[in-house]
Amino acid sequence: MAGNSFGKALVLTTFGESHGIAVGGVLDGFPSNINIDIDFIQSELNRRRPGLDFFSSPRHEDDLIEILSGVFEGRSTGAPIAFLVYNHDQKPADYEHLKDVYRPSHADFTYQQKYGIRDYRGGGRSSARETVARVDGGAFAKLLLHQRKININARISQIGGYALNDPGSAVHYEKTVIFNSDIIRFLEELKITGDTIGGIISCTITGVPAGIGEPVFDKLQADLAKAMMSINAVKGFEYGSGFACAAMKGSEHNDVFTNEAGKIRTLSNNSGGIQGGISNGMEITFRVAFKPASTLMMDQETVTVSGEKTILKGKGRHDVCVVPRALPIVEAMTALVMADQGLRNSDGFLLRKAMK
Amino acid sequence: MAGNSFGKALVLTTFGESHGIAVGGVLDGFPSNINIDIDFIQSELNRRRPGLDFFSSPRHEDDLIEILSGVFEGRSTGAPIAFLVYNHDQKPADYEHLKDVYRPSHADFTYQQKYGIRDYRGGGRSSARETVARVDGGAFAKLLLHQRKININARISQIGGYALNDPGSAVHYEKTVIFNSDIIRFLEELKITGDTIGGIISCTITGVPAGIGEPVFDKLQADLAKAMMSINAVKGFEYGSGFACAAMKGSEHNDVFTNEAGKIRTLSNNSGGIQGGISNGMEITFRVAFKPASTLMMDQETVTVSGEKTILKGKGRHDVCVVPRALPIVEAMTALVMADQGLRNSDGFLLRKAMK
Amino acid sequence: MAGNSFGKALVLTTFGESHGIAVGGVLDGFPSNINIDIDFIQSELNRRRPGLDFFSSPRHEDDLIEILSGVFEGRSTGAPIAFLVYNHDQKPADYEHLKDVYRPSHADFTYQQKYGIRDYRGGGRSSARETVARVDGGAFAKLLLHQRKININARISQIGGYALNDPGSAVHYEKTVIFNSDIIRFLEELKITGDTIGGIISCTITGVPAGIGEPVFDKLQADLAKAMMSINAVKGFEYGSGFACAAMKGSEHNDVFTNEAGKIRTLSNNSGGIQGGISNGMEITFRVAFKPASTLMMDQETVTVSGEKTILKGKGRHDVCVVPRALPIVEAMTALVMADQGLRNSDGFLLRKAMK
Amino acid sequence: MAGNSFGKALVLTTFGESHGIAVGGVLDGFPSNINIDIDFIQSELNRRRPGLDFFSSPRHEDDLIEILSGVFEGRSTGAPIAFLVYNHDQKPADYEHLKDVYRPSHADFTYQQKYGIRDYRGGGRSSARETVARVDGGAFAKLLLHQRKININARISQIGGYALNDPGSAVHYEKTVIFNSDIIRFLEELKITGDTIGGIISCTITGVPAGIGEPVFDKLQADLAKAMMSINAVKGFEYGSGFACAAMKGSEHNDVFTNEAGKIRTLSNNSGGIQGGISNGMEITFRVAFKPASTLMMDQETVTVSGEKTILKGKGRHDVCVVPRALPIVEAMTALVMADQGLRNSDGFLLRKAMK
Repeated sequence: MAGNSFGKALVLTTFGESHGIAVGGVLDGFPSNINIDIDFIQSELNRRRPGLDFFSSPRHEDDLIEILSGVFEGRSTGAPIAFLVYNHDQKPADYEHLKDVYRPSHADFTYQQKYGIRDYRGGGRSSARETVARVDGGAFAKLLLHQRKININARISQIGGYALNDPGSAVHYEKTVIFNSDIIRFLEELKITGDTIGGIISCTITGVPAGIGEPVFDKLQADLAKAMMSINAVKGFEYGSGFACAAMKGSEHNDVFTNEAGKIRTLSNNSGGIQGGISNGMEITFRVAFKPASTLMMDQETVTVSGEKTILKGKGRHDVCVVPRALPIVEAMTALVMADQGLRNSDGFLLRKAMK
Repeated sequence: MAGNSFGKALVLTTFGESHGIAVGGVLDGFPSNINIDIDFIQSELNRRRPGLDFFSSPRHEDDLIEILSGVFEGRSTGAPIAFLVYNHDQKPADYEHLKDVYRPSHADFTYQQKYGIRDYRGGGRSSARETVARVDGGAFAKLLLHQRKININARISQIGGYALNDPGSAVHYEKTVIFNSDIIRFLEELKITGDTIGGIISCTITGVPAGIGEPVFDKLQADLAKAMMSINAVKGFEYGSGFACAAMKGSEHNDVFTNEAGKIRTLSNNSGGIQGGISNGMEITFRVAFKPASTLMMDQETVTVSGEKTILKGKGRHDVCVVPRALPIVEAMTALVMADQGLRNSDGFLLRKAMK
Repeated sequence: MAGNSFGKALVLTTFGESHGIAVGGVLDGFPSNINIDIDFIQSELNRRRPGLDFFSSPRHEDDLIEILSGVFEGRSTGAPIAFLVYNHDQKPADYEHLKDVYRPSHADFTYQQKYGIRDYRGGGRSSARETVARVDGGAFAKLLLHQRKININARISQIGGYALNDPGSAVHYEKTVIFNSDIIRFLEELKITGDTIGGIISCTITGVPAGIGEPVFDKLQADLAKAMMSINAVKGFEYGSGFACAAMKGSEHNDVFTNEAGKIRTLSNNSGGIQGGISNGMEITFRVAFKPASTLMMDQETVTVSGEKTILKGKGRHDVCVVPRALPIVEAMTALVMADQGLRNSDGFLLRKAMK
Repeated sequence: MAGNSFGKALVLTTFGESHGIAVGGVLDGFPSNINIDIDFIQSELNRRRPGLDFFSSPRHEDDLIEILSGVFEGRSTGAPIAFLVYNHDQKPADYEHLKDVYRPSHADFTYQQKYGIRDYRGGGRSSARETVARVDGGAFAKLLLHQRKININARISQIGGYALNDPGSAVHYEKTVIFNSDIIRFLEELKITGDTIGGIISCTITGVPAGIGEPVFDKLQADLAKAMMSINAVKGFEYGSGFACAAMKGSEHNDVFTNEAGKIRTLSNNSGGIQGGISNGMEITFRVAFKPASTLMMDQETVTVSGEKTILKGKGRHDVCVVPRALPIVEAMTALVMADQGLRNSDGFLLRKAMK
């Protein structure tokens, strides 16, 4: 039983390897009669493109989405939506030197152990290139959510030891990601030494009505956690008060209910918009930790596939900090969770009748 | 589409409310011919029992598991295993005063919003009593894992602001959980004021061979995260280096491979035993943050179901710190994930043939 | 991966063996706020009871359903509904002689081959007693469907070589099933010789609106076929024109559309109410073939578990014709399919908005 | 919740419309390290091609499979296998006249009712062209099954009123399907009048060991029935004795066990190789009824989308009898079921240990 599908009511199945023919996916369960704004989907894809700013790896690809099915005259038909992006920038020869070596903290060793075979070209299936399909699928999900005024916003809140408390000023998406001068100096130094750095992304979801989430196992935070932890390089997830809750008293942590012009809200939001696994109508907030990228432009000790010591040379593409490129991926996976949970929260024909 | 089942190859479906007739579950996909050690399962259940130590709530229940099916002459038959624990200590009248009020940071409000009806007796389905079924199901999973020398060990690593760096000396399971004298004083003060406190549980899994985990969505850490985040009161999950990775450089964070007497291992374990979503044969490590319990023995402001301001009096049962009781729950959910992923990692009849 | 759950939006998981402690199930995804008419559910259960008429086996059980969860003050809460029926009439000693023998056309041999262990008491999990849980689960589904005026009616249309073309007069459910005198004579003779006979059940579903069914794999007829073929003793399924279609020309078989007072209908119904896997608003019709029961009151040749020839004596309980008792089972599985497909046909919160 | 995925351990998700860009699928759960014989897969696809013989529709397409992922250096990697076939012969203008009319016994009306939108070009998603992806997916499954010496053979056993009792002589696959002269005359007459005819396909599976199938809902016959009933134009399914069992006595129908040189077998095979939902090691046999194709080359009464009476002219492509082209589709769906059930029948790492 493999695990390349995500969601229960809205199911995204992805495929493709870093240096295969194409990466893509099939989205099943997408409602019919939705206008498919292809420009929006392409713009989402552009946000994760490598080479977007000078700290990212210089792979240049025109990642163009092609929709193969499920859309007719600009609207969804209810049939599965298949899409793909061809891999134009295939240079498998670049990876010949990785055929017989296990790169530290990559998936080379574990894939070989699990499958007994490994597509060593750029990480194969374990490459972050796989997230192209997530961003595409998530863009479709956003089209649904936008109809309900549900919006998702991911921003960088930490790079290395630097907190970015004013996200508005610190991060711009339009063409490049711009940080304050201290961080830029720090990143430039890393680039020179061939090193990398981790970071934290914060994400908020606004406009979610109370009632979304499926206890006891598919609680909203559980599905969000799974979605985030399935992204390459993610090492931690927390929502609302997060890990800080461990040091808090109940009397500090409890969110007091209040009646605000007929609407029940909470005064604080340590719950992060979710109580008992179900949205409570407040803003949903969570944070995701990304490790430093494992590909370094420096010599590293490691072993060959036959277990001999060797030195891995820094070579090929290199992201000093993957966090900026991860923003659209975090948003895409969030959108997939919210659309899936929204559709699961059926008040379909049987239930609707009963509720009346 | 509700969410009361967990797992894909080994599926636990749970049922039951805090003050209903019984809580229990059905475990489908459990292999046949396994000896079912009922004493072990009962002993696991005893570990989560309320009233275990003087900081926990004084509800006294003899939670006795009854197995209804799937076991014949002491061995599993391959048929679904149904089990239940009757709720003997039902005092629904104790909860009459909660019928019309939304308790802060509980699930009262969200359940009412989602379902349009609410079993207000002790939290109904949203009560932590639901975890009885998780502990039972997890105990069966442990029986499987123990056959393969896979062991799971959860320990408390933080209570409030107190780190417990030497778990061996700090926590004992046998009859009570004993902490150092500073923490005990702190907890006693909380008890007097009617307040509660959060904490962190660390968990390790030993004996897992390389190759367990199903990319790209059902990565091992993704399934563990979902399992943990589905537990009541959990606000955060991290594995390996966790959130600390954000401030680390790649050159510090990468785990160097080495050949130790013919076995490939890593010198450090920032990966927490998982690379690319698949176990690498090292110890698996993760941490889980628990918020302070929301039930306080003090007055709290809140609103009634009709939106009027009211004061909620402290009354009923009260856990100063739920973390000790959460240890078997963390282990149980871990066991369910590991057994499920182990069974999914089929080298069943078709694959086995192919591998030869 | 076992297979003891049925449905995707409304999921019934069943458990229990013929001579275990209890048989029962958990129904997850049942909408909240539905009045649960326990008398109706019990009355459905009574319809499948053995010993109902003089042709059925003389096992006498007061099968009483107990609901353990998911219902509060007479209404469903949205939490999983667990129910069970205790096995009061356990006589495992009656089956001691079957421990070492494989009964012809029963599941003894295949269960032993598959699981390496076999609960030989009355067929264990493979016993038709398992259908108690199906009838219970189906009764809940009927409660939903009745709210939408969807009705299911199964009737016997063939016993052995006898067609029952006028089901109204031929079959009565109230206390006993009464056939015409020819059939009664035939069944009496079978009873004397210890033999059994097969039959065919026809089922109709009325009130289904157009639009139910999920192409391309979960077409309505595909789900109905799976449901029926999963019932013990069923050997065939056909809908609409069924196998007779093979000898028909398209010009005879096509159902001509017509406009009947503003409603589009078909003049004939060879489609059996389903076109392209989706209901078309006409009556849904299908037929199910049941083999003669394998338990005979006569000597039969067979082999022991160690492969030696032996004679199996007729002994224990005996149904001359299982078809009358199968009527509520066919209806129950039909109800589960229709409720599941109805709930899957979500026009939930995202879709509903889009449709407006 | 849409229904475009099939299988649980080996999951095929299909996409594509008759006159869209491409039809294809993603196969997840396919074991790694299997040699992928692309010529075999293409040859399977060629078998379902239209225009194969003079009774089939004259659409000429070179359906060439392209594999996008999951195969590396000729072997499967364990990653999802995506494949597609481009639709070269798109002539949407041919279907402009169908935009506003509901063709009798097609899915035009039901798709419009369900989705509120309809891709009217050649049936869109409801077209039999969708089966290209089934045949491709099934060809991969056959590669697995062949390694275990499991073979599937579908043959025509009835065309209209003509039984084909000697399938060896009656049906040839290589270039054309040749029938006896009576049938050919009959088909030629149908072609002249623009009419169509139904038929029955019989299928056998050999080499299946005892133990495959997952009671109580995913019995082997239940999965086979669902697979067959999900194919366009199928109206009935029966296995072993099938509908004929209704007129049989238990003493005739029971399959007597015997010991044949140390192997337990049955003397007859009314069980069709399946008992209690699990294969018993005998040949598996079933039959599938196909209705006459709904597209006729004659005038038919029908209604427009606005409900007005109209005459539908015969126009476009026309299959006198779809049964020959359905042979590879029946085999493909059978292969998908058998591979899925084979992989589900895991004796993976936990179970294997336990069995020793």
